[in-house]
Amino acid sequence: MTPTITVFANSPDRGRGLARDMPVRWALEEAGRAYEVRSVSFAEMKGAAHKARQPFGQIPAYEEERLTLFESGAIVLHIAGHCPALLPAEEAARARAMAWMFAALNTVEPPVFDYSLAGVLEKEKPWHDERRALLEARIHDRLGDLSRHLGEADWLEGAFSAGDLMMISVLRRLNSTGLLEAWPAIAAYVARGESRPAFTRAFDAQRALFTQSQAQQAQPLKESDTA
Amino acid sequence: MTPTITVFANSPDRGRGLARDMPVRWALEEAGRAYEVRSVSFAEMKGAAHKARQPFGQIPAYEEERLTLFESGAIVLHIAGHCPALLPAEEAARARAMAWMFAALNTVEPPVFDYSLAGVLEKEKPWHDERRALLEARIHDRLGDLSRHLGEADWLEGAFSAGDLMMISVLRRLNSTGLLEAWPAIAAYVARGESRPAFTRAFDAQRALFTQSQAQQAQPLKESDTA
Repeated sequence: MTPTITVFANSPDRGRGLARDMPVRWALEEAGRAYEVRSVSFAEMKGAAHKARQPFGQIPAYEEERLTLFESGAIVLHIAGHCPALLPAEEAARARAMAWMFAALNTVEPPVFDYSLAGVLEKEKPWHDERRALLEARIHDRLGDLSRHLGEADWLEGAFSAGDLMMISVLRRLNSTGLLEAWPAIAAYVARGESRPAFTRAFDAQRALFTQSQAQQAQPLKESDTA
Repeated sequence: MTPTITVFANSPDRGRGLARDMPVRWALEEAGRAYEVRSVSFAEMKGAAHKARQPFGQIPAYEEERLTLFESGAIVLHIAGHCPALLPAEEAARARAMAWMFAALNTVEPPVFDYSLAGVLEKEKPWHDERRALLEARIHDRLGDLSRHLGEADWLEGAFSAGDLMMISVLRRLNSTGLLEAWPAIAAYVARGESRPAFTRAFDAQRALFTQSQAQQAQPLKESDTA
């Protein structure tokens, strides 16, 4: 059965592919699986129908015949479990790939996400500059360790895995910040991920949905102009 | 082979069982597995030998014969994979348990951890009170959704799983904040986890290590007093 993912009707990242449906779309593309998309407005996202799928009223949610799933990490892991190119069958290699998924979401993402969030929610606060400097230092700590581990390798553990998919998804938030300029090996690693055909298909699909939602929002305005 | 976990020699939580070795110890106890403990000082934790085990220089690390693993989420998942009482064999139930593990670490923990961190690192900053209020609001949002999902159930998905183990491990950071008083079902859920015999064994083991490290630190001081 074709799974359905629930995503933002109108993503706050304006189609830059930074929302959490992106790693799920990417994993589905790597696994060669078709999927359906349901989009929700911000109001619908916090409503009872969506919270029955996603207890915290977030996107994405994932549905297949006998399973409703939430948390992008868990959804990617579920998809990867059926795709040896994302998650190796051998137990130790599989565990290492999972370690990088958790490292992406629980060690690298927190300061990166805080940095994005502070840029939006705390931009006008008197503490913004000082806190931004603290967060930049925390991010550089993580990037330094990651860069040392990566060395000159293409991927974190030999072959590309769901661990790279998740790590690159997190690091992409830094693309427009200038912080990756200090870490050329990491910038190249992110670009390597973004150049995968499956990434491109996933990116284009989320971008097309955003463009379409913008066009639809524009529609009623035009009509009222001529009414 | 008995696995070895690497933990703080002298945990900054002073034996309150809030460090990230606690969910790993708890999972090992639930699974009925013996383990060895290696403790590292803060300096050793950031040194090359430990970073070979744990690329970000954090605790815990986990070693068994052919596998070195990091990230408490990945370690708990690896242990749980061999223990049906922590991770059900049926695929959909297993995926749901994993969803709660990720929800614990990636949706509930970020504001909870930020709140703890701000209490330590930003206590003297002029922005502390205002930012603390923002973080409390974010935490209450999460707790409200979690409480609604939990309802009157004992555990998040029927039987106790690694999802509960991880969620309760995260929520325990709130025990001393007063924030759980607004959410009696969650406070009861945390207490239910803490009353499991496996939790108690894990807690006592980490506490004993802390007490012992304090005694050893006291030793040289005493000797120098009498030298």
